Amino acid sequence: MPFVHIRITKEGATEEQKQKLIEGATQLLVDVLGKNPASTFVIIDEVETDNWGVGGKTVTKLRADAKK
Amino acid sequence: MPFVHIRITKEGATEEQKQKLIEGATQLLVDVLGKNPASTFVIIDEVETDNWGVGGKTVTKLRADAKK
Amino acid sequence: MPFVHIRITKEGATEEQKQKLIEGATQLLVDVLGKNPASTFVIIDEVETDNWGVGGKTVTKLRADAKK
Amino acid sequence: MPFVHIRITKEGATEEQKQKLIEGATQLLVDVLGKNPASTFVIIDEVETDNWGVGGKTVTKLRADAKK
Amino acid sequence: MPFVHIRITKEGATEEQKQKLIEGATQLLVDVLGKNPASTFVIIDEVETDNWGVGGKTVTKLRADAKK
Amino acid sequence: MPFVHIRITKEGATEEQKQKLIEGATQLLVDVLGKNPASTFVIIDEVETDNWGVGGKTVTKLRADAKK
Repeated sequence: MPFVHIRITKEGATEEQKQKLIEGATQLLVDVLGKNPASTFVIIDEVETDNWGVGGKTVTKLRADAKK
Repeated sequence: MPFVHIRITKEGATEEQKQKLIEGATQLLVDVLGKNPASTFVIIDEVETDNWGVGGKTVTKLRADAKK
Repeated sequence: MPFVHIRITKEGATEEQKQKLIEGATQLLVDVLGKNPASTFVIIDEVETDNWGVGGKTVTKLRADAKK
Repeated sequence: MPFVHIRITKEGATEEQKQKLIEGATQLLVDVLGKNPASTFVIIDEVETDNWGVGGKTVTKLRADAKK
Repeated sequence: MPFVHIRITKEGATEEQKQKLIEGATQLLVDVLGKNPASTFVIIDEVETDNWGVGGKTVTKLRADAKK
Repeated sequence: MPFVHIRITKEGATEEQKQKLIEGATQLLVDVLGKNPASTFVIIDEVETDNWGVGGKTVTKLRADAKK
């Protein structure tokens, strides 16, 4: 009964990509620990770039700086 | 000062239902552990069905399959 | 498939009390939202009183002050 | 590589305030524990007032009662 | 800069298995979303079986029942 | 009523340092958003270095490599 919580910045992950994350994380728990996939939960949290900071700056700002 | 975090899929929980979850979770901590309700926090997280996976599939897909 | 995460300070909750929290939280989701108990997860996190702060003080200190 | 998760009610925090929370939390880890700011993550979670309860009531209700 | 949080019951995962979970989760984010592995964090939380409930029972109890 | 959750690797943070993190995080919410310190919670989670991965490696391994 593992529970996997994936946090990524909200930058356009598609439904298909989210499906792949869920499949992949579930399979990982099966492969490494022999867990039952039926009782494995995966949640994806898409966080606004204004609300995620790295090195003291928002990702919004980091993305803008990278484009300069 | 307990902190209860309830994650459910975003499938139309009403304001009244959310109020009941908050009341019930708070009361549970009072009843079982004698906690002070005034300093009990409850947060409800409603997760999109595309972002929640069980058994390697998104809940969106599971709901669609169940209707077939 | 709800997921309930209960954080309390580590101050001697017994196995029986933890069992009651798990039962009660599961039943709450059944009663309020009609969720399936079999796929309802509850996790209890017992946090050391040195690692939990309220009003800028650790609970360890708050408990000691309350005894004075 | 600390990870700081700040949950606040969604009541109009501005981009500038969020930037200040990220800067301040990052600096705190540098000052107190000598952590490397470049690998310090901060996430801000803004929770709807209907989804946050204190003392068994939603913050929505508490705010309304406070205005009476 | 994804952040993956894996919760499993504390039932003897080895250092090598934990290393594999970390590698696998990091690679998943690289493969599916093209994320930079260097800024991908993975945390594994091992939860006591007394503190994890499924279907209203602790995993401790479920494991004992399964052995009967 | 903010809730701040600080995750750090378990590498010997002292009681005094934890007290400073709690004070600092609480004050940050007061300064930036005018929150009430009395209803501000801070939790510190100290994660074993075997259970935290960066760039696909455990922090245990990263620390050992850094000493070579």
